[in-house]
Amino acid sequence: MNKIALLALLFFQLKATAQNQRPNIIVFLIDDMGWMDTSVPFGDSLQPLNKRYHTPNMERLAREGVKFTNAYATPVCTPSRSSLMTGMNAAHHGITNWTSPWRDDPTDQADKEFERANWNYNGYSGLSEVPHALQATPLPMLLNNAGYFTIHVGKAHWGSIGTPGSNPYNLGYQVNIAGHSAGHPQSYQGRENYGNIPGKASVQAVPDLQEYHGTDTFLTEALTLEAIKSLKDPIENKRPFFLHLAHYAIHDPLQPDKRFVQKYLDAGLPAQEANYASLIEGMDKSLGDLMKFLEARGVANNTVVLFMSDNGGLSLVPPRAGTAHSHNLPLRAGKGSVYEGGIRVPMLVKWPKNSKAGSICSEPVIIEDFFPSILEIAGVKQVKTVQQVDGKSFVPALSSTTIKNNPDRPLIWHYPNKWQVVDGPGINYYSAIRKGDWKLVYSMRQQKLELYNLKEDIGEQQDKALQHPEKVKELSKLLSDQLRIWKAPMLTYKANGNRVPYPDEVKLP
Amino acid sequence: MNKIALLALLFFQLKATAQNQRPNIIVFLIDDMGWMDTSVPFGDSLQPLNKRYHTPNMERLAREGVKFTNAYATPVCTPSRSSLMTGMNAAHHGITNWTSPWRDDPTDQADKEFERANWNYNGYSGLSEVPHALQATPLPMLLNNAGYFTIHVGKAHWGSIGTPGSNPYNLGYQVNIAGHSAGHPQSYQGRENYGNIPGKASVQAVPDLQEYHGTDTFLTEALTLEAIKSLKDPIENKRPFFLHLAHYAIHDPLQPDKRFVQKYLDAGLPAQEANYASLIEGMDKSLGDLMKFLEARGVANNTVVLFMSDNGGLSLVPPRAGTAHSHNLPLRAGKGSVYEGGIRVPMLVKWPKNSKAGSICSEPVIIEDFFPSILEIAGVKQVKTVQQVDGKSFVPALSSTTIKNNPDRPLIWHYPNKWQVVDGPGINYYSAIRKGDWKLVYSMRQQKLELYNLKEDIGEQQDKALQHPEKVKELSKLLSDQLRIWKAPMLTYKANGNRVPYPDEVKLP
Repeated sequence: MNKIALLALLFFQLKATAQNQRPNIIVFLIDDMGWMDTSVPFGDSLQPLNKRYHTPNMERLAREGVKFTNAYATPVCTPSRSSLMTGMNAAHHGITNWTSPWRDDPTDQADKEFERANWNYNGYSGLSEVPHALQATPLPMLLNNAGYFTIHVGKAHWGSIGTPGSNPYNLGYQVNIAGHSAGHPQSYQGRENYGNIPGKASVQAVPDLQEYHGTDTFLTEALTLEAIKSLKDPIENKRPFFLHLAHYAIHDPLQPDKRFVQKYLDAGLPAQEANYASLIEGMDKSLGDLMKFLEARGVANNTVVLFMSDNGGLSLVPPRAGTAHSHNLPLRAGKGSVYEGGIRVPMLVKWPKNSKAGSICSEPVIIEDFFPSILEIAGVKQVKTVQQVDGKSFVPALSSTTIKNNPDRPLIWHYPNKWQVVDGPGINYYSAIRKGDWKLVYSMRQQKLELYNLKEDIGEQQDKALQHPEKVKELSKLLSDQLRIWKAPMLTYKANGNRVPYPDEVKLP
Repeated sequence: MNKIALLALLFFQLKATAQNQRPNIIVFLIDDMGWMDTSVPFGDSLQPLNKRYHTPNMERLAREGVKFTNAYATPVCTPSRSSLMTGMNAAHHGITNWTSPWRDDPTDQADKEFERANWNYNGYSGLSEVPHALQATPLPMLLNNAGYFTIHVGKAHWGSIGTPGSNPYNLGYQVNIAGHSAGHPQSYQGRENYGNIPGKASVQAVPDLQEYHGTDTFLTEALTLEAIKSLKDPIENKRPFFLHLAHYAIHDPLQPDKRFVQKYLDAGLPAQEANYASLIEGMDKSLGDLMKFLEARGVANNTVVLFMSDNGGLSLVPPRAGTAHSHNLPLRAGKGSVYEGGIRVPMLVKWPKNSKAGSICSEPVIIEDFFPSILEIAGVKQVKTVQQVDGKSFVPALSSTTIKNNPDRPLIWHYPNKWQVVDGPGINYYSAIRKGDWKLVYSMRQQKLELYNLKEDIGEQQDKALQHPEKVKELSKLLSDQLRIWKAPMLTYKANGNRVPYPDEVKLP
């Protein structure tokens, strides 16, 4: 071997070694999981709901990683999932509501007062141009281009059928198991083929899991087994991987995970709530199985695990039992709402080599922050994206528990859509902004601004707008300016075609 | 055990034994395979094309079963596939053209003269009611209800995405591997993930075969391995099965099956034709592997194998090399045409216990005949279907080589659609009828009737209409009456909105 060849070989070996040291990354994304749906307390103290649920593996992850107590998603799923993939705020990417499996089928409920806002109801289409869909560079494509092996398992729900975003491969995934256009499973039961029943398969029938059909394998378990299977190749080939394990759990239909449901029934919970709790524990077992697998394969120390939910816990009755809008107490309301119950979610991050075990970060972070954070973790620099990225990396918080660079950064939610037939607390036509401890909530229907101090009043019970008009003015201007800059979808009145006022155009009380 | 219990047990055992004796049924359906695309001569003598192609397993099947030399499909795929599932003629079920993967997207080329016919362009939707789709009881559902384990592997192409027919489960299949709305694969290559490439997956990317991604497994081989895998359960459980193994091969893209292509290149074929021949031989290997598996499992003697193609061989240049409309010689034209090259296809049936090995049946049969034949083979009687079934069982021919009951039964093709931008021989807006040796061809554009005697002139070169006006009259009336009874989709002129004449309304020359 001559010297040049030897040098070249050494160079490639060094490069390969450097590449092999890049951390593996797992996003463990849960559907519809509320801030209280866990035995890990994300509030200041252990609440009754924390005692109801059993999530020992989340407890372990919290002990070994960082707990984010002020982590946010959007009120519903597709906006959050698209923010995670693109780093854009929902008001900016324009997918402000959940997307139908059908193309050109806006999911807004009919309303007497408002015309439908011009949102991206065909969802996210990756780099393809599709009418009424978001065109933006996807996170997995960037990771894949940087050498990562990219895997999606579970719920996708990025684009309607017939659009490129309906197929996770088009977002840069190299493996897709069970992800398509639907936002929930037809069935969680292997005995029911996850919905693939002769003559009865709906568009929500889960694809790809034929091997588990007719068995007792619960969907959460099947996805876990498939995720683990998909990791074997990259681990053997010493290739860094990005796994997006997006469970269908704990979204409705609230079916029992039979491995866990009995103890919740025995504890006296009504059937729906026992089912709900069993869905949570099944999801938690998945987390544990995955962590055990990483340890057994000797890659746990070089794998970052990011636990997240895509919106607050569902609190409609039915399908839940009990009192509507109470299932995330002390947080107000639930899924679909811009109140904390709809948007504040459990988030845990463990980066064995860099995170401070058992620490707590109380700085506000939001779902679009995953995009720059994951790229930073992966060491991907000088990223070229079609879109302007709104998210900020939370990686500094992993080692120091503060993000430092911008403690007063405003976070924005914008939901100019009608989610439910009947308006609820913070549900249907709301925007909101949080800056520091202050949160402004804007009802487009009522043309009303509310102001809460989350530090003193996490339950958003005491509207301080009258006492702090300057704060209302400041936040409404911040919110409105950003909505204008982002060209966020806005409503118009049916009666006269006028645009609904921006928050800073609303007359203060 | 008391006597009643013992009797009940015996009864169920007897019943189970009787059921176990029901034959397994395999439909081995090839896409776009022409009558000459095989080393098995379906004509009177071995032709040059029979020498070009190597299909030793088809040769074996022909030796062990019955060769149908006058077997027909329709000119393109979806109509044939829907006829097989429903027993209806295409003019009757109204899916007269291939269906788009997209819903509400008729595939007809634009035409200056004709409005689009009102055909079922959303395809076949099983028992569901869908606008512009066929509602009819599907064969696999009837078999499944009768106790058969029903499996689909490969190309489905029954309904557009978003319709129930896009999911083979809705037609009564208990297993579906790789079947969806698309009519061809994005890629046959495992190295290209069958099209599931990050950022580049089209709607033709083949689902379900993740395990073969990144490997050298050719699509035909992957489907064969999956089909064999799916048979293990029913065989072990002694449950009769119905396997619909519908290969994507040999449809365009004409990619090389690397296991076989070299010898065809060595024989001097141009690349496209070598690729084409390799697709054929790969398909033939699949047939052989399947037959070997059945033997190894000891079920070959109780398994009926039905080999069929869904239309004539593609003869457009490109993608084929050579002269357009010449690839099925001595038959005239190819896929898309109502001339013999477009509709006459290779068909072989082996029922070890009932068919006469090595025999030849020259009576005309057509794709909708599979429906009643398969039900007869399965012993399913008193079938209730939503639709009136047009097909006739060819089972009598398996033992006696004649069907006897109706040697002069007329067969009908109706294709009131524009398949290609440029009209070709028998291509775009044609109907046809065959009765005995006579075939009438009706060009809607030219308002012309042609008459051929297939016994003397299989190449349809000598139009005998002028010599046999009575035959023209008889056949045009037969064809027209049937189109009226079936309410077949008909064209109208753009100029005046008038319906295009039925054949019996055309002025004879």
